[in-house]
Amino acid sequence: MTPHTVDAFHRGRFYLVQPADRGHRAGLDAMLLAAAVPDGLAGRVADLGAGAGAAGLAVLARCPNAEAMLVEREADMAAFACATLKLAENASLGGRANVITADVTLRGKARLAAGLADNCCDFAIMNPPYNDAADRSSPDELRKAAHVMTDGLFEEWVRTAAAVVRPRGGLAIIARPATLGAILAAIESRFGSAELMAIHPRPGKAAIRIVLRAWRGQRGALSILPPLTLHGETGNAFTPEADGAINGERSLFPR
Amino acid sequence: MTPHTVDAFHRGRFYLVQPADRGHRAGLDAMLLAAAVPDGLAGRVADLGAGAGAAGLAVLARCPNAEAMLVEREADMAAFACATLKLAENASLGGRANVITADVTLRGKARLAAGLADNCCDFAIMNPPYNDAADRSSPDELRKAAHVMTDGLFEEWVRTAAAVVRPRGGLAIIARPATLGAILAAIESRFGSAELMAIHPRPGKAAIRIVLRAWRGQRGALSILPPLTLHGETGNAFTPEADGAINGERSLFPR
Repeated sequence: MTPHTVDAFHRGRFYLVQPADRGHRAGLDAMLLAAAVPDGLAGRVADLGAGAGAAGLAVLARCPNAEAMLVEREADMAAFACATLKLAENASLGGRANVITADVTLRGKARLAAGLADNCCDFAIMNPPYNDAADRSSPDELRKAAHVMTDGLFEEWVRTAAAVVRPRGGLAIIARPATLGAILAAIESRFGSAELMAIHPRPGKAAIRIVLRAWRGQRGALSILPPLTLHGETGNAFTPEADGAINGERSLFPR
Repeated sequence: MTPHTVDAFHRGRFYLVQPADRGHRAGLDAMLLAAAVPDGLAGRVADLGAGAGAAGLAVLARCPNAEAMLVEREADMAAFACATLKLAENASLGGRANVITADVTLRGKARLAAGLADNCCDFAIMNPPYNDAADRSSPDELRKAAHVMTDGLFEEWVRTAAAVVRPRGGLAIIARPATLGAILAAIESRFGSAELMAIHPRPGKAAIRIVLRAWRGQRGALSILPPLTLHGETGNAFTPEADGAINGERSLFPR
């Protein structure tokens, strides 16, 4: 295995094997995403685009009766996820998860052949990759292209989530605020009774992330919950609410 | 004129003639909507679906260099708006507004004939009617029909806003959180650099309204601002932030 680190999460309740110098290194986003799963979830969770497995393992660490299916396209990252499951420190979690090396956007028979069966899960979580090109480029044409790509990404990822999650099962997404329109369009007629929570870095600052949770086949209207603020006016300490959610002590959502 | 009341707004800086016993009586929503207009706006504001003119007049009361075009489909309500403009108490405002009795959803030549010219305004504000049927009925089919109607409503209203607002002019909408997806779809490719503010009744409670502001032809991504909370944990007093915005002392938005 290439150079890697073994990092503690949830105040040392689980560990993650991650590439030291490349790929996506898990952190806050994965922990906040995992905190969108209801407390005490008993059932199977699909971590779509799992990377090294941070969000899926965070769910297992908080929900002792949950299982996780870690779905990752990149073989390198899937190998890190497998190494994570085998860590002695994760003994209480590793037996409750499996890794599927597959592209989340597979459709039809290709999706089924990869092991992503219809209605096989009770909940799906996703932290889709950001389109870095959109952040770094300013010309209008590039922005437009990136926007179209983002729309398509959520449509494809949510379509797969709607296939693998059973009726009345849940979906949670963490993403940038800019993608909210694409996300709401993608869940339309698939997942309803959605709850939106904005994540603000400090009081008075615009949100840096959104977490959206919704339920397969439900028809209730979107509700907007009070936001989560990560830090106070100054300093690097987390607010008590953020600290508890990031460290697996409570769900982000009241229900 | 039918039974009416004359009600003070902005701590008595303007008054509104309203039907006493029927129709829509203006209040918090109109004042919050008006507060979405930038401080010191100099130019023409279209109040689409103006009712008795509450939001439009609130803009005039706060922005001494603004003019308003009050667009209202219902002749009864337009008559109240005309009476409002003639009130002696509104002497400093009435001369800066006119009333157009027209359906906001008019298209093409019919819209132009009604006086809603292309690029005639610098800003549009709208508080579209709620579909009460959706609130009172629970059967799925009715909910679905109401949902489709709501989608169509924002599409039609925002289309007209995009016609009457000049390039780089603004749009502000106040609506229920449930309509956010329809609003984001309607502004797509028409208004960009949108800012979303959720309005919460009290700390810890889900939002009851959203205010969205966006700019004609701009391409910036959606941002989510810190929310406005109307009241504290208990009591009927407004928070200082809400009180200032409702009473025309500051814009809801930082810029």
